[in-house]
Amino acid sequence: MTKSKVEIKTGRLDVESSGRPVSRSRPSGVITLLTDFGNGDYFAGAMNGVILSINPEAKIVDVTHEIPPQDIQAGAFNLLALRKTFPRGTVHLAVVDPGVGSSRRPIVMIIDGQFYVGPDNGIFSYVADAADDSLESFHLTNSTFFRQPVSQTFNGRDIFAPVAAWLSKGTKPTEMGSKIKDYVRLPSLKAEVAKDRINGRIIHIDHFGNCVTNITQNELHRDMIARGARAHVGRRVVKSFRKFFAEDKGDKEKVFMIWGSAGFLEVAAENDSAARILKVKRGDQVVIDPEE
Amino acid sequence: MTKSKVEIKTGRLDVESSGRPVSRSRPSGVITLLTDFGNGDYFAGAMNGVILSINPEAKIVDVTHEIPPQDIQAGAFNLLALRKTFPRGTVHLAVVDPGVGSSRRPIVMIIDGQFYVGPDNGIFSYVADAADDSLESFHLTNSTFFRQPVSQTFNGRDIFAPVAAWLSKGTKPTEMGSKIKDYVRLPSLKAEVAKDRINGRIIHIDHFGNCVTNITQNELHRDMIARGARAHVGRRVVKSFRKFFAEDKGDKEKVFMIWGSAGFLEVAAENDSAARILKVKRGDQVVIDPEE
Amino acid sequence: MTKSKVEIKTGRLDVESSGRPVSRSRPSGVITLLTDFGNGDYFAGAMNGVILSINPEAKIVDVTHEIPPQDIQAGAFNLLALRKTFPRGTVHLAVVDPGVGSSRRPIVMIIDGQFYVGPDNGIFSYVADAADDSLESFHLTNSTFFRQPVSQTFNGRDIFAPVAAWLSKGTKPTEMGSKIKDYVRLPSLKAEVAKDRINGRIIHIDHFGNCVTNITQNELHRDMIARGARAHVGRRVVKSFRKFFAEDKGDKEKVFMIWGSAGFLEVAAENDSAARILKVKRGDQVVIDPEE
Repeated sequence: MTKSKVEIKTGRLDVESSGRPVSRSRPSGVITLLTDFGNGDYFAGAMNGVILSINPEAKIVDVTHEIPPQDIQAGAFNLLALRKTFPRGTVHLAVVDPGVGSSRRPIVMIIDGQFYVGPDNGIFSYVADAADDSLESFHLTNSTFFRQPVSQTFNGRDIFAPVAAWLSKGTKPTEMGSKIKDYVRLPSLKAEVAKDRINGRIIHIDHFGNCVTNITQNELHRDMIARGARAHVGRRVVKSFRKFFAEDKGDKEKVFMIWGSAGFLEVAAENDSAARILKVKRGDQVVIDPEE
Repeated sequence: MTKSKVEIKTGRLDVESSGRPVSRSRPSGVITLLTDFGNGDYFAGAMNGVILSINPEAKIVDVTHEIPPQDIQAGAFNLLALRKTFPRGTVHLAVVDPGVGSSRRPIVMIIDGQFYVGPDNGIFSYVADAADDSLESFHLTNSTFFRQPVSQTFNGRDIFAPVAAWLSKGTKPTEMGSKIKDYVRLPSLKAEVAKDRINGRIIHIDHFGNCVTNITQNELHRDMIARGARAHVGRRVVKSFRKFFAEDKGDKEKVFMIWGSAGFLEVAAENDSAARILKVKRGDQVVIDPEE
Repeated sequence: MTKSKVEIKTGRLDVESSGRPVSRSRPSGVITLLTDFGNGDYFAGAMNGVILSINPEAKIVDVTHEIPPQDIQAGAFNLLALRKTFPRGTVHLAVVDPGVGSSRRPIVMIIDGQFYVGPDNGIFSYVADAADDSLESFHLTNSTFFRQPVSQTFNGRDIFAPVAAWLSKGTKPTEMGSKIKDYVRLPSLKAEVAKDRINGRIIHIDHFGNCVTNITQNELHRDMIARGARAHVGRRVVKSFRKFFAEDKGDKEKVFMIWGSAGFLEVAAENDSAARILKVKRGDQVVIDPEE
């Protein structure tokens, strides 16, 4: 676990903090865990144990511990896709933390009535970019809420899990540290529109090999699809657009576009991995142009 | 995720529906999840979130999200092996759903006092075939119980999870849709008995490489084993029969037969993968004959 | 699943049993599961179901089901690293059980106010060796607390899960079987100190490829590190010592020593797998000597 290769920028909040979110956000008792710890070691179990030692009533959902090691962007994407399925007051604990033990800050953010606890390395920035409402951030400095002694290699167990547990019991973030106005942000997910082209990229490849792009219905309109917009991805031109995976368009195209469940355009294949067929990886370009 | 290659037949219920199961089945509050979504994405977490948003008291057991992609038979086998360990009133949510978004029906079945929610593609048919009691099926049509908007790519989140949550709170299936008398069935698991031979097949290969067959004590009787029945599997003849994995029969046979924990005959190896040694896969034939 | 290749010795308790731990240990309602069953089958789900059938209020934490098949030592290490994150009265259910169905005993141990349920094959012996307090062991013989019929291939479901559930409800181990004074022990984890050298070994390789050794701060003192102690591991000499993974020591060493989160010395690499770089495996020697 070490420094990220992700290019990051530190930005000011462009949403004025009103102070309201903190007081409005009552904990739901639900805590989600998302890490790159894998499922083979005691790491995730240890975080469960620390939480249950502090809040025996917590409802813990182990979302995934299989984020690729040190892959902050994959963590950020999954949080973005996940958040609206959980109730207000949920505490999302996310630990993809190559900078553990360094001067990177432990933080809690309050976004749209949910709490996000983890390292300040951009992992919450896609969620923050998509916020409907004002948001607030706090630098976790009050070690009263940490497990002692705090190791320099496993803050998930020693800082983030106990803080999440206390939040789920109703402790206010204002008691845990000082408000901050900056936090680390990843480059935006927004796709570029240039004349009649959309310049996007693959932001995630899922378990089935579906390639999730950063293109939404804000860029790719219904009428463009109706007129036969095409996707250039890898060395291939993808022409077909399906409403559901098994749709028979009669066009015998193995690879097709589809609106995915996270609200993004996906490039997919029927009962097969589009990523493997197209030989693409996260970050690769996807360009949409109108049919000639 | 798309159309299954599994050969399916649509059958009428041969058990008369009495109406009693519905009223008799009080929810236990337990919901199990079984899918082919993998553990690396937000998919399983999203279903947990939707359930807890509707029923904060639900006890969710993530049985497995590692059913091989689109493998309805593997899902069906695991449900069969699992069901008797859970209390009456448990809701089993199973999503291996290559036909998601198509005209395949979303259903709930009530079998032996437990609820089964998922796509009508045969995934519940091994459980239905083994039912002790009458069973009932409902086509889920009442979108009041769905999450809106319903996507065409992730019904697990938008239809099945909320329906499971409402069932776990006591909502009756009769409020959720209309009773149906047909449902998709996979070919039966029953092994054929022809004279003194049993013609079976491998129906599952587990984590340890043990090969689970469809042969039960109904076909392979104790006295046949005592007289030295042999299994022909792959290119090999398996002669040894053990009571437990580490049993020392003094015969130095690496591969042996054993009664497995799901009630089926298994072909296994000590501290090794029988599937790898025998170079077999699911569907391969297993023939039992008496010793010559 | 069969006989372990681990060298085991049967030892007497060197701690006098006072009888107090049993009465002092009130269940917390938390049950942890640790097995080598994998996440792809119904096995772990079945144990969850059995527990919830007996104690619907149990809080189950699936720590891991990915202990390498039959690897008792890996199970023992993860229990050791895990235990202090859980509250007193937790029931730890551990099933890595190559001897299932044989004459190896099913046991429950009470160590430092927590319960350990599983096969008597050494899986609890690292925890027992590290006990602060007296400990007690019981041979589980009272089949009233088992699921019937007890299979000879899946005691996790039929013996250990129900026993764990009853313990979590307050049933006393004294009702479940007879006290025993011996239990199977693995070779000690303690590293040897010979003059100015420490002879240790790799006891675990984690998800990130970090190599956990059996060397603690009892053997490797702060001043030895300050004076430049070096680790000989694989064919390499590791000279650098970091406080945290991303620490920049200016020495450009890719592989370094670090105190890991389980309290042991680890040999690690920044954003990479030290195990892969060093081509080492569990059991390989790690020798520390002072700088020349």
